[in-house]
Amino acid sequence: MERVRVAVPGRAYDVTIGSGLLAEASQHLPELLGAERAFVVADPQVAGRHLPALTDGLSARGLGVVHLAVPQGEEAKSLQVMAAVQRQLATQEAHRDDLVVALGGGAVGDLAGFVAATYMRGVPFVQVPTTLLAQVDAAIGGKTAVNLPEGKNLVGAFHQPVAVLADVSTLATLPEREYHSGLAEVAKVGVALDLDLLALLETDPAPVLARETSMLEGVVASCVRAKAEIVAEDERDAGRRLVLNYGHTLGHALERLDAFAGRSHGEAVAVGMVFAARLAEALGRAPAASLGLEADGGLPPADEILAAMRMDKKYRSGLRFVLLEDVGRPFVQDGVPEDLLRDALAAMGSRVVETEG
Amino acid sequence: MERVRVAVPGRAYDVTIGSGLLAEASQHLPELLGAERAFVVADPQVAGRHLPALTDGLSARGLGVVHLAVPQGEEAKSLQVMAAVQRQLATQEAHRDDLVVALGGGAVGDLAGFVAATYMRGVPFVQVPTTLLAQVDAAIGGKTAVNLPEGKNLVGAFHQPVAVLADVSTLATLPEREYHSGLAEVAKVGVALDLDLLALLETDPAPVLARETSMLEGVVASCVRAKAEIVAEDERDAGRRLVLNYGHTLGHALERLDAFAGRSHGEAVAVGMVFAARLAEALGRAPAASLGLEADGGLPPADEILAAMRMDKKYRSGLRFVLLEDVGRPFVQDGVPEDLLRDALAAMGSRVVETEG
Repeated sequence: MERVRVAVPGRAYDVTIGSGLLAEASQHLPELLGAERAFVVADPQVAGRHLPALTDGLSARGLGVVHLAVPQGEEAKSLQVMAAVQRQLATQEAHRDDLVVALGGGAVGDLAGFVAATYMRGVPFVQVPTTLLAQVDAAIGGKTAVNLPEGKNLVGAFHQPVAVLADVSTLATLPEREYHSGLAEVAKVGVALDLDLLALLETDPAPVLARETSMLEGVVASCVRAKAEIVAEDERDAGRRLVLNYGHTLGHALERLDAFAGRSHGEAVAVGMVFAARLAEALGRAPAASLGLEADGGLPPADEILAAMRMDKKYRSGLRFVLLEDVGRPFVQDGVPEDLLRDALAAMGSRVVETEG
Repeated sequence: MERVRVAVPGRAYDVTIGSGLLAEASQHLPELLGAERAFVVADPQVAGRHLPALTDGLSARGLGVVHLAVPQGEEAKSLQVMAAVQRQLATQEAHRDDLVVALGGGAVGDLAGFVAATYMRGVPFVQVPTTLLAQVDAAIGGKTAVNLPEGKNLVGAFHQPVAVLADVSTLATLPEREYHSGLAEVAKVGVALDLDLLALLETDPAPVLARETSMLEGVVASCVRAKAEIVAEDERDAGRRLVLNYGHTLGHALERLDAFAGRSHGEAVAVGMVFAARLAEALGRAPAASLGLEADGGLPPADEILAAMRMDKKYRSGLRFVLLEDVGRPFVQDGVPEDLLRDALAAMGSRVVETEG
C-alpha cells in the first residue's frame, strides 16, 4: 500500500493506493465530523461489481450507505443527471456533513465531484476510481465538470476530495481497451515527468500488461505522485499544471471530431504525444526520436483538425502546445507556425488540402 | 459616492455605492484582462429600465454587451434556467475571461453568480443590484445558489464578484413593498451591528422613507461596511457570519410556511427580530425592551413554525438563534428550551396547541 499527500493549500488530502482497499475504506478516510451517510454515485454495472465491498468498508465507519445510480460513461455528465442526483440528495435529506462518494471511472468522478461541489454550496467528497485512467489522472486534482450539448466540461468547479482510494484490484476486470487507454496517460507521465517510470515501462512492460497487483501499485503511485506535486503548486491550472496537457492539444481536438469517433481518450492522447514529439523535433528543440511512441494513422484531414484545436477553450489567444525538450523536460510553446503543424499532421497520415497563398 | 473594500483573502473587491453609477460602470470596474464581452443576466422588466444605461457604461470600457433574459424573481433560481443561461454562454462562445453581470434583485444575483461560478469552472462576475435588499445584503459576500423543488438555495457555490456597483438611483422606481422589505434588513444591521445606523433610522426616518439619494448612499454604505467586515473574516459561514442571521431562524421558517405566503423576506425577518428580542429577554440576557420593533401578528400555529425551523439545513443538530445581549452586541445561542420558544411565539399571537406530557 502506498500513500501520497496532495498538498493543496488549506485542503490537503491523501491518495491511498493498494489492493483490496474498498472493504477497508474506513481505515483510509480522514476524520469526518458529523457525517452520518455516504451517498455513493455509481452506474449499475460498477455498483454491481464493487458496491458490496465498499459498503462493508464504509459501514465499518458507522456510515449508512445509499446508492445513487447514474448512467454509464459520458452520459452521466449532463446537467440533467446532475439535477436528478441533487434532488435525490435533497429528498433523502442529505446534510452538509454527509459524504458524496464517486465510485467508477472519470465520468462518474467528474459528475459526483460537481454534485459535491454544489450541493449546499459544498459537501465532503471521496473519489474511489475504478479505471486506470481515473486512478492515475482524473480522480486527482479536484477538477469536476459536466458537459453541455455545446461542448465537453463547460460547466464545473474546482472541488478537492477529502480522500482518494485507488484500489488497483478493481482494474482486474477492466476491458482491455479501457486499460490501454489508461496506459497512454501512464506513458504521458513517464515521457513528460518521470524518467524512472518510463524506464520501467520500456524495460519490462509484461507485468504491467498482465496487471500484476504489486506492479500496478507502483505505477499508479508514480503517476499520482507526479500529478500531486503539480496540482499542489498550481491548483487552478494557471501555470505548471499545463504540462499535464502533454499530448492533449491534438488529443482533445481529435476527440471532438466525428471522423475520429470510437477512439478512446487514451488513443487520442497517444496520437497527440507522437504529434508533440514531431513538433518539438521540427522546432529544433528535441532529439530526432519519436520517443518510442507510434501513431496508428487514420487521422481526419488537417483542416478539420486545426479548426477543432482552435475551438478549444484553452487556446483562444492562439494554439498552445506542451512539448518536450527531452524526456522529462516539458516546456510550453505558443505560436507554432501553421506550416509546421500541417507538415507534422501530414507526416502522420492526415490528408493536407493545399490552402491558397 | 462611497467605496467599501471587501477584503476576502485572495479575492478582495470593491463595492461602489452612489447615484448614477450604471452609466459610469467603466470607471468602477477593476482591470479585466482579456474580457471582450459582458453577458448581462436580467429579467425583461429590469433590463427595460436599466440596461440602456449599463450598456453605455460597459461599452465605454470596450466591452460588447449581450443581454441574457431570465424570468422575474425566484423563478430565475432553478437548475433549468441555469442550464439555459449556460447554453447561451456556450452558443455565443463566451470565454473564460469574459464577464457575467447580474443586473437586478437578489434572485438574479444568486442565479447569475452560480452561472459565473461554474461556467468553465469560474468566470469573472459583477453584481449590479437594483433592489435595496440586494444592495445591503444579497449582492455582498459571494453566496450564490439556485433552488430545488425540495428546498431553497440547495445547490450553489461561493463565488466572489470582482466588483459590486450599488446604484441607489435604481431604488427610486422600486415598489413600496419591496423597498420596505429591504428596510427590514437595514434595521437588522442597525440593531445587531451598527448603533449609529440604528440611531439615524430612529431619530429621523423621513429622508430614508422618502428615498433621498444622499441619505440612501449613507445607509447602503453602512450596511455594506458591516457585512464586508464580517464576510472578510468568515467567508464560508463558519463563525462570525452567523450574526448576519439575526431574525432569520424564525424568518426563514415563516417563509417556508404556506400560512405565511405572500409576506416578503423582509417582513418575515422583521417578525423574526421581534421573536429574537423576546427570546433574549426570556433568557435573561437582554433588557426587557422590544428594541422598537413590532410584529404584525397573523402567525401560523407554533407547532408548524417549530417544525419548519427544524427543517432548516443550518439547524440539524438543534435550533440555533442569533440573539442580542443589547443592541449592537449579538451572540449565538444553542439549546433554547422548547417552552421558551412556545411562550415567545404565543406572546406574538401564534396559537399554541397543548402537547402531552
